[in-house]
Amino acid sequence: MSLLDASKTAPLEGGASFSLANRLARVAWGVAWLVLARWTPPPLHRWRRLILIAFGAKVHPTARVHASVTIWLPANLALGAHCLVGPGARIYNQGRIEIGAHTVISQGAYLCASSHDVRDPAFQLVLRPIRIGERCWVAADAFVGPGVTINDRAVLAARAALFEDAVVDGIYRGNPAVLIRERKLNPMPSRN
Amino acid sequence: MSLLDASKTAPLEGGASFSLANRLARVAWGVAWLVLARWTPPPLHRWRRLILIAFGAKVHPTARVHASVTIWLPANLALGAHCLVGPGARIYNQGRIEIGAHTVISQGAYLCASSHDVRDPAFQLVLRPIRIGERCWVAADAFVGPGVTINDRAVLAARAALFEDAVVDGIYRGNPAVLIRERKLNPMPSRN
Amino acid sequence: MSLLDASKTAPLEGGASFSLANRLARVAWGVAWLVLARWTPPPLHRWRRLILIAFGAKVHPTARVHASVTIWLPANLALGAHCLVGPGARIYNQGRIEIGAHTVISQGAYLCASSHDVRDPAFQLVLRPIRIGERCWVAADAFVGPGVTINDRAVLAARAALFEDAVVDGIYRGNPAVLIRERKLNPMPSRN
Repeated sequence: MSLLDASKTAPLEGGASFSLANRLARVAWGVAWLVLARWTPPPLHRWRRLILIAFGAKVHPTARVHASVTIWLPANLALGAHCLVGPGARIYNQGRIEIGAHTVISQGAYLCASSHDVRDPAFQLVLRPIRIGERCWVAADAFVGPGVTINDRAVLAARAALFEDAVVDGIYRGNPAVLIRERKLNPMPSRN
Repeated sequence: MSLLDASKTAPLEGGASFSLANRLARVAWGVAWLVLARWTPPPLHRWRRLILIAFGAKVHPTARVHASVTIWLPANLALGAHCLVGPGARIYNQGRIEIGAHTVISQGAYLCASSHDVRDPAFQLVLRPIRIGERCWVAADAFVGPGVTINDRAVLAARAALFEDAVVDGIYRGNPAVLIRERKLNPMPSRN
Repeated sequence: MSLLDASKTAPLEGGASFSLANRLARVAWGVAWLVLARWTPPPLHRWRRLILIAFGAKVHPTARVHASVTIWLPANLALGAHCLVGPGARIYNQGRIEIGAHTVISQGAYLCASSHDVRDPAFQLVLRPIRIGERCWVAADAFVGPGVTINDRAVLAARAALFEDAVVDGIYRGNPAVLIRERKLNPMPSRN
């Protein structure tokens, strides 16, 4: 998709990393979210979903995105069933970000799907997609780095910063985040 | 206190974790702080204290809370004498948070007194109170995790994330934060 | 410079750490940035530079500062050629902060050039300047602590928190940040 390619420009010299079409699309998106969604109370998830879909996001009808979430470009976002993106979360999806069903992204979490090539004197932007599986939990203020895959049911603790892939059922903590133990889900729900 | 109980609902299915009364109280609180306090200049600490007290907080007359502080529910907050809560601090007190006399919570610090049970398929909310003693310093952007007690005069360095209790006079740094040395207070004030 | 001296007062008792002249200058600065710059679109870098210079900052004509950047006092800031300070970065320059040519400070980074003396019962403010060299990269949400020098071409990874000096070409990651490897720049630009 041409909108998503980082053009061969020079960010260090003030050149834009994205095409004019991409930048105009993002201005329109920013204005639309500010005017139509940013002030809406929490329960209006379905209304906010319509706006996201209008700008190209794939969002399951049961997914919930809070009004204070920052999204770089909806066209680069896919959210599964019952997925929740909490207040103040930052979806910096210059590269694509996909989040699976029943996964919770808590308040203030930061998903960053791009980086710069530190070997390149021109400091070229590099797009590195993030994929998060089902029933995962990215806790408050946690950071998911460029190119990271978080597999099903893994947990990233509050404030953790993850730069490698997370295994199924892994619980990660710290900066850099490391695997601290396995998540053992109870066989039965604790309520009836 | 019934307002503070997490009801047995299913956050993953979109159910609320708190009662309707709790949610209405928080809407009223959010509006009151926005209209009456959020724009006030720093010196108006006593005015902001009155608003906090009206919503159930226990705040010593000499305690100071900045206008840009975020508080989840004042009824869950207690602040001692000469305590300071700096700009942009987040008091996420779903569980109770108590802060002792002469303690400084610096700008951007985040106190988080709740979590989710990662073993529970229903992902139940868990309230875990935070207690911070006297003459402590939680430095800029530091994070204090659920259930943590910080004992008197302990220091949590900037950006540190603390998930265990802090001993008296301990200086903690890093994520996860670890004890790096003992705080040695000079016997005499440096000014007269 | 008398404006920049922390006066011998008692922050723990509610006393101001800075002179009345300093505080008035900061109120004027805050209002000016809010009215003249905070709402400006990204390309208006030269306009924002004029405001910074009017308040005493040294800013090279090619340096770029985003509208959402927070600066404590422009008189304490120096920015080199083609330097970039990204969205939401916090320049907490109670102590002086100097940033070299072609250096990038990414979105949400936090440069904190002051601390408190934890041995002092009066908790005196301590000014500790930060110096960042040329062609460095302080990545998203990274934290640079009081008194730190970052030497030329060093990189601080996203969310890292640096409390010691960074060597030339060093790549640092984690909290506390540690040297993880050397940066090897390609001899030739990757574009022509």
